[in-house]
Amino acid sequence: MVIVMRPDATQEQINNISEYLKKLGLDVHISKGAEYTIIGIIGDKRLLGDTPLELMPGVEKTIPIAEPYKLVTKTFKPEPTVIDVRGHKVGGGTLTVIAGPCAVENKEQTIETAIAVKNAGAHMLRGGAYKPRTSPYSFQGLEEEGLKILAEAREITGLPIVSEVISPSSLETALKYLDVVQIGARNMQNFQLLREVGQARIPVILKRGISATIEEWLNAAEYIMSEGNYQIIMCERGIRTFETATRNTLDISAVPVLKSKTHLPVIVDPSHGTGKRDLVIPMSLAAIAAGADGIIVEVHRDPMHALSDGPQSLSHDDFAVLMKKITALYNAMEHVNGQY
Amino acid sequence: MVIVMRPDATQEQINNISEYLKKLGLDVHISKGAEYTIIGIIGDKRLLGDTPLELMPGVEKTIPIAEPYKLVTKTFKPEPTVIDVRGHKVGGGTLTVIAGPCAVENKEQTIETAIAVKNAGAHMLRGGAYKPRTSPYSFQGLEEEGLKILAEAREITGLPIVSEVISPSSLETALKYLDVVQIGARNMQNFQLLREVGQARIPVILKRGISATIEEWLNAAEYIMSEGNYQIIMCERGIRTFETATRNTLDISAVPVLKSKTHLPVIVDPSHGTGKRDLVIPMSLAAIAAGADGIIVEVHRDPMHALSDGPQSLSHDDFAVLMKKITALYNAMEHVNGQY
Amino acid sequence: MVIVMRPDATQEQINNISEYLKKLGLDVHISKGAEYTIIGIIGDKRLLGDTPLELMPGVEKTIPIAEPYKLVTKTFKPEPTVIDVRGHKVGGGTLTVIAGPCAVENKEQTIETAIAVKNAGAHMLRGGAYKPRTSPYSFQGLEEEGLKILAEAREITGLPIVSEVISPSSLETALKYLDVVQIGARNMQNFQLLREVGQARIPVILKRGISATIEEWLNAAEYIMSEGNYQIIMCERGIRTFETATRNTLDISAVPVLKSKTHLPVIVDPSHGTGKRDLVIPMSLAAIAAGADGIIVEVHRDPMHALSDGPQSLSHDDFAVLMKKITALYNAMEHVNGQY
Amino acid sequence: MVIVMRPDATQEQINNISEYLKKLGLDVHISKGAEYTIIGIIGDKRLLGDTPLELMPGVEKTIPIAEPYKLVTKTFKPEPTVIDVRGHKVGGGTLTVIAGPCAVENKEQTIETAIAVKNAGAHMLRGGAYKPRTSPYSFQGLEEEGLKILAEAREITGLPIVSEVISPSSLETALKYLDVVQIGARNMQNFQLLREVGQARIPVILKRGISATIEEWLNAAEYIMSEGNYQIIMCERGIRTFETATRNTLDISAVPVLKSKTHLPVIVDPSHGTGKRDLVIPMSLAAIAAGADGIIVEVHRDPMHALSDGPQSLSHDDFAVLMKKITALYNAMEHVNGQY
Repeated sequence: MVIVMRPDATQEQINNISEYLKKLGLDVHISKGAEYTIIGIIGDKRLLGDTPLELMPGVEKTIPIAEPYKLVTKTFKPEPTVIDVRGHKVGGGTLTVIAGPCAVENKEQTIETAIAVKNAGAHMLRGGAYKPRTSPYSFQGLEEEGLKILAEAREITGLPIVSEVISPSSLETALKYLDVVQIGARNMQNFQLLREVGQARIPVILKRGISATIEEWLNAAEYIMSEGNYQIIMCERGIRTFETATRNTLDISAVPVLKSKTHLPVIVDPSHGTGKRDLVIPMSLAAIAAGADGIIVEVHRDPMHALSDGPQSLSHDDFAVLMKKITALYNAMEHVNGQY
Repeated sequence: MVIVMRPDATQEQINNISEYLKKLGLDVHISKGAEYTIIGIIGDKRLLGDTPLELMPGVEKTIPIAEPYKLVTKTFKPEPTVIDVRGHKVGGGTLTVIAGPCAVENKEQTIETAIAVKNAGAHMLRGGAYKPRTSPYSFQGLEEEGLKILAEAREITGLPIVSEVISPSSLETALKYLDVVQIGARNMQNFQLLREVGQARIPVILKRGISATIEEWLNAAEYIMSEGNYQIIMCERGIRTFETATRNTLDISAVPVLKSKTHLPVIVDPSHGTGKRDLVIPMSLAAIAAGADGIIVEVHRDPMHALSDGPQSLSHDDFAVLMKKITALYNAMEHVNGQY
Repeated sequence: MVIVMRPDATQEQINNISEYLKKLGLDVHISKGAEYTIIGIIGDKRLLGDTPLELMPGVEKTIPIAEPYKLVTKTFKPEPTVIDVRGHKVGGGTLTVIAGPCAVENKEQTIETAIAVKNAGAHMLRGGAYKPRTSPYSFQGLEEEGLKILAEAREITGLPIVSEVISPSSLETALKYLDVVQIGARNMQNFQLLREVGQARIPVILKRGISATIEEWLNAAEYIMSEGNYQIIMCERGIRTFETATRNTLDISAVPVLKSKTHLPVIVDPSHGTGKRDLVIPMSLAAIAAGADGIIVEVHRDPMHALSDGPQSLSHDDFAVLMKKITALYNAMEHVNGQY
Repeated sequence: MVIVMRPDATQEQINNISEYLKKLGLDVHISKGAEYTIIGIIGDKRLLGDTPLELMPGVEKTIPIAEPYKLVTKTFKPEPTVIDVRGHKVGGGTLTVIAGPCAVENKEQTIETAIAVKNAGAHMLRGGAYKPRTSPYSFQGLEEEGLKILAEAREITGLPIVSEVISPSSLETALKYLDVVQIGARNMQNFQLLREVGQARIPVILKRGISATIEEWLNAAEYIMSEGNYQIIMCERGIRTFETATRNTLDISAVPVLKSKTHLPVIVDPSHGTGKRDLVIPMSLAAIAAGADGIIVEVHRDPMHALSDGPQSLSHDDFAVLMKKITALYNAMEHVNGQY
């Protein structure tokens, strides 16, 4: 933390702040510039708590230096985290494609899609059982019944299963069935849920909140890790901007930014990120080229009749094409990245 | 719902869509323009569900016509909703000022501030017991202990008490103590919490999500109302934009927009909306001038030592000034609005 | 400027940077914290130019301390700037209302509106002669012919006249006719135009760019002032956000933020800021309550037939009501602000 | 255009609007739904001009159907536009890499970088001669002197040269030297400049405005085309969002969106789009994978001493690596896109 004093700050004000900080057990370094005096705070910043130093007389502003999270950083753990999901590795040089319907609508539909994505080469099956919907009048999901259907689909296909949890009680139920739980964008700052997921011992896909900065997103991961669960997969899924041509603006640059800051694997959701079926394939390829470890994508046997998110769902045939293209690209990237 | 066909759509494609809609029990009106053919859908749109008509061959795009919410609208209930909180009316021509510390830190601090805001003229006491914090290493609130302290402060001052709930279990506890519960910005789309608050019979302050459109915010209120709880106070608290001079951008225009769309009372939170103490008074006045029914504001006996949100908290003296100014303005607005 | 070194930075890297800065004629203060070493740079930062210190080995990031503008600040000039426009004072405790049609369409329409706004109490007449329009197929303005019509309207009503300039050549023509020139939102960073306006000796209304931070906006004012023209009126007119219920989000909090940073007068444009006629009056009142020195507002004798921006234009009768309300509020604010 | 009437609109109001439109020479189709009546307008919408139909009694809102631009669409010209720049084809299946310093600082520096990027395989040389800078105290470019240096670099390397124009007068000068002119983000809605570039007969790189929607950007291209210049290259360079980890948010999804709407070639600027050197290579690859026709990238022989935009400039060695990787990826994409 650095304190910038106002140009008209008095020596007495500077002394007061220094003494205040020293009483807290911190040390200070004072630099007098042409216009501004800067006070650098040295020591364990937890001693400072949330003290609003900007309210002290003579202070212009305070500037944080250290990042507020720790466990998620590469400084803390330089080597990439690789997460084992029933034998499939997420991160560390393996492509991960997670596919399935937005919502588990019934057994037949789910199993049909599970078989299709398995045959096309997907590594995990996704499907929503608890659906957070903007309108109270939309389909809200089959809940535990949906989780049972996913478990049946796993039995048939061997694919690990992923589904979203939306509350502590849905988490408790979900842990009985799932291989990976997902925290959706709307719950990225549902801190109680983050804590409870942190106490579970299950891999977590943590989606970026629709208006979350990368720093807030890493803080959300820190919540989970601070409770002891280190198996987190970061998932970029689009941020809210002024642009209306796409449902959200998929922030592909978040992939290399995260790769520079954290050891956690990073995947991308091009379905929610764009909201448009025609954009799913090009944006999946862009994600891989930017260095993502994989994608999570919505697939429906009959998008026209999907109970939710039809416009952004791929058909089984579309998905087979995506799978071929993304595999070809992932393989080509080894050659591309080998250039120097 | 209106369907816009692509310029090159064939008559067969248009017929297919018409027949599809008629099978669902809907009627259609077809308008052929110079370039585009438009299909208007007539009938109960619930028959349509979430069918992604934009995926049908020949469709350029679909445009929703009706709003997705109903109970919150002035069409449904033209007269303003007035909410009675222990005798104080919120909405309908009464000024409401809710004040208190960001967090309940201890009994002494809370009661001291409760007395101060009561003496200055506040109508309700606010204080956080369950604190959703961005970093897991920040103070997280006293929880039930905090609610008990608020109840004591009510006993001493007679002020009704307001606090935030962050999960179904905190709601259950809160209902034992509070007069009004608050849904924070981060939980505006925590739909399970909205439903449970909807089943309670207690007034609710529903804060706008940091990146929520006014339409999504009204949908969140609709969730609560659709469960039977009609006592909702909408609270604008700033949206996330590119501007960094303020913590958020307080969207004062949301006040008249809401007033044109909904019968619910509207208040403004200038503390979170700006993040800066010096902006709290001018933005409180702006809110009232724009037609807000009141404000909710953070007050601390010693902002320098507040455990959270110190930079945006008013001191007791600041609050007394605010209360005088806002009362003077509220009274003057009757004369101002009487001009025509 | 403060340089934050990476946690793993070596002493040699720190020395290299110190020496580099000393060679430029700057001095340094080094603070070693628990995790980070911070290098404070002392001296005239112009010696640094745009040197990208963040590229030097071992640097984590750099943090600017001083603001990049100077002439616009209250540090440079503490007393408020008051601008005299043909005897009417802008700023310094006088209400300024500038009104008129979006576009000068013809003589009759302009003079009719000029007389109406004069009679209602407006202080200046606005009207667009050079119209920057999103589509090349929209009405583009009467250009010099429009300026002549405004000058005639001034002769008849005595109102000073304001119009937008969009290029150096339009500025040259405009200087022959206008009392105040306006730089529109789209040209806020048209630096050549800013320079040429800076060389003129005429009051300037500088509108905020639709996505400009307050810092960038102040920098644009600095451009004008650095060429010698000190008569600048800052005009908030809405920023682009994700919200679509309004054309833009009128950032009322920019008013008190500017008032804390600059000596320049601040007005608000509630017409472009909201894009909706029904919001113009409440947002005008909010602007005044927040401390604005005035407003600029679109008025048309027949908004239904306006050649541009009809939806946000007030009729003559609407404007007369606005004028009464805003005057009543402005007068009441003296009493409101007198409370302490 | 579709008009949605309010639920309480009367038959008389509907008739009035119909008659009004018929007098203008338009035809109408009226659809009465359960709640809303919709009036579809049929005929040449230019007859309507900017009439604010939303102001007519009984109207809830109006919804545009047709896009406001025409010449840029694939409906108007289905085959991709390929632009010939001294024999190098932009668009239509050829990779285009444009590289060079942010600013032309002097002859030696420019020629050294020109030779380096030529040797690495670049197709054109870029360099800024007229620099629009946020602060009036930053380096503003060598102007015509800079253009002469670029022309010398062309003579030596054979590379076509690209530079930004910022005003009609700079355009006039630039036409004497350049092969391609660039309209920068800040001038995307400088409509007078767009018109003058439209009257010239030179290829244009049109950068997206920092807060421009894709629709506004296409409208800006329409301005140029409506004056007769059809040689436009669209360049995505990042939009302004709330995220601060990157300078802007590079909207890679704009590439496939544009490819679906327009016949014009699309390139991406990963330097300005991210503001960080480390992100330039991954985002260049993402752009190509998403279907871009090329990139424009900043290269400096000594980024530490660049007079502008050093932090985002690649060194000569970095650029050579980028060139190898991007070529490898571009070649691989043929195989990737061949999968189905």
